[in-house]
Amino acid sequence: MGPEGTFTQQAAIKHFGHSAITKSMNAIDEVFREVDAGSANYGVVPVENSTEGVINHTLDAFLASSLKICGEVELRIHHNLLVGHNTHKDKITRVYSHAQSLAQCRQWLDINYPNAERVAVSSNADAAKRINGEWNSAAIAGDMAAELYDLEKVSEKIEDRPDNSTRFLIVGREDVLSSGDDKTSIIVASKNQPGALYNLLAPFYKEGIDLTRVETRPSREGKWTYVFFVDFKGHKDDPGIVKVLSELSQNTTDLRVLGSYPKAVL
Amino acid sequence: MGPEGTFTQQAAIKHFGHSAITKSMNAIDEVFREVDAGSANYGVVPVENSTEGVINHTLDAFLASSLKICGEVELRIHHNLLVGHNTHKDKITRVYSHAQSLAQCRQWLDINYPNAERVAVSSNADAAKRINGEWNSAAIAGDMAAELYDLEKVSEKIEDRPDNSTRFLIVGREDVLSSGDDKTSIIVASKNQPGALYNLLAPFYKEGIDLTRVETRPSREGKWTYVFFVDFKGHKDDPGIVKVLSELSQNTTDLRVLGSYPKAVL
Repeated sequence: MGPEGTFTQQAAIKHFGHSAITKSMNAIDEVFREVDAGSANYGVVPVENSTEGVINHTLDAFLASSLKICGEVELRIHHNLLVGHNTHKDKITRVYSHAQSLAQCRQWLDINYPNAERVAVSSNADAAKRINGEWNSAAIAGDMAAELYDLEKVSEKIEDRPDNSTRFLIVGREDVLSSGDDKTSIIVASKNQPGALYNLLAPFYKEGIDLTRVETRPSREGKWTYVFFVDFKGHKDDPGIVKVLSELSQNTTDLRVLGSYPKAVL
Repeated sequence: MGPEGTFTQQAAIKHFGHSAITKSMNAIDEVFREVDAGSANYGVVPVENSTEGVINHTLDAFLASSLKICGEVELRIHHNLLVGHNTHKDKITRVYSHAQSLAQCRQWLDINYPNAERVAVSSNADAAKRINGEWNSAAIAGDMAAELYDLEKVSEKIEDRPDNSTRFLIVGREDVLSSGDDKTSIIVASKNQPGALYNLLAPFYKEGIDLTRVETRPSREGKWTYVFFVDFKGHKDDPGIVKVLSELSQNTTDLRVLGSYPKAVL
């Protein structure tokens, strides 16, 4: 997902190594389509940032696709304020970046460039590419983009939180065997009735399974109806989890196991 | 929140009537600050769209503020594709709107303007204002903005889902008495341990209280820690809810009641 020089490319390299052939896509949906069609073995998409929370388009893409999650990658995210060679740092009146990155540096921008216009573009790399010709614009992007587009760093590590990290998912067409330290992701829907979420969580509680995340997203079924994205520790073939999933499938209106995959290490 | 001509202004009029004096703010944080400082009696901010889900900045603003929720408004949202008088609909290569609105019309744009660049700006009204001087740009915005900036409608009701609606919150400094048909919103945090969310929901289940929404957001305490925003039916002074809240306050690390307020009618 995203042009060369984005953090997603960095995540792909971290997971698959430098010899993997990467292909750039313009949108999360396109990544899913490409992998679904078999034109790529795997896709890499961001799913959650530690400061800004979940990336909704990635969750929604799973609602429209039958792809599986084969892995996750966690990356420490450092942002720079970058300018082209004919821009002086006192002349910056506009800052381009992806909406997520603008949000991750919001307080820094409020203090250092309170009057600069913030323009959300499709990716950090796109922001970096854009500013080369301009004289009063800056971009927020990582080191790879700075190098790729030969930009100057006005400031480094401008993210508001020093532990700013992003989780990426590896999507593919096949299941992954247990590694001994896995996570599993499911989508589950239940009737809109009192106790729905509570009853849905009960089997996990009974089996002592540790939920790592519960996200609520609008379902496609009707206004103000929701589906839940649930992540938990363990592999879908573990006996306790087999039990939980069978219980869930009986008591919910929809259940899809997105996959089990080795837990990311930072 | 937002300049004149946004849906938020429409929501303010729906709630307070045409005689209320409204004041435009550029950011959700500013709305909170203005009300906190007493410069305005109430603030109106969007909190959730039925297609695109929660508006993260609004939830996060509550984490940094002591304001209360005094009411909610629900508005059916219809979008138009708008152009200035010297733009022909076949010449559109760029579409401006708020990121939420671009997302609400994503499929329509994919079909009708697959090659147009989509530029996210700070509000729909800002998008409408911007295009007046341009010859190849369009804006996605509502009827109020079309009228205010004297723009032509290329297409009406271009939202992907016909029931597309947005919920707005009224924020203020005071508690609201029970109306008999209320909702209550709380923020709650608990230790990151197995069963945390399940245990948190248990008191609601025992008292038969209907949860209308559970949202997870990154907390400010540490990487991959979360707080929960929970909405449920009833008023915080109802006996059952008094019981639930007292139980919660004993078993969680943090609990804040954002307010009880009359349920919105569409």
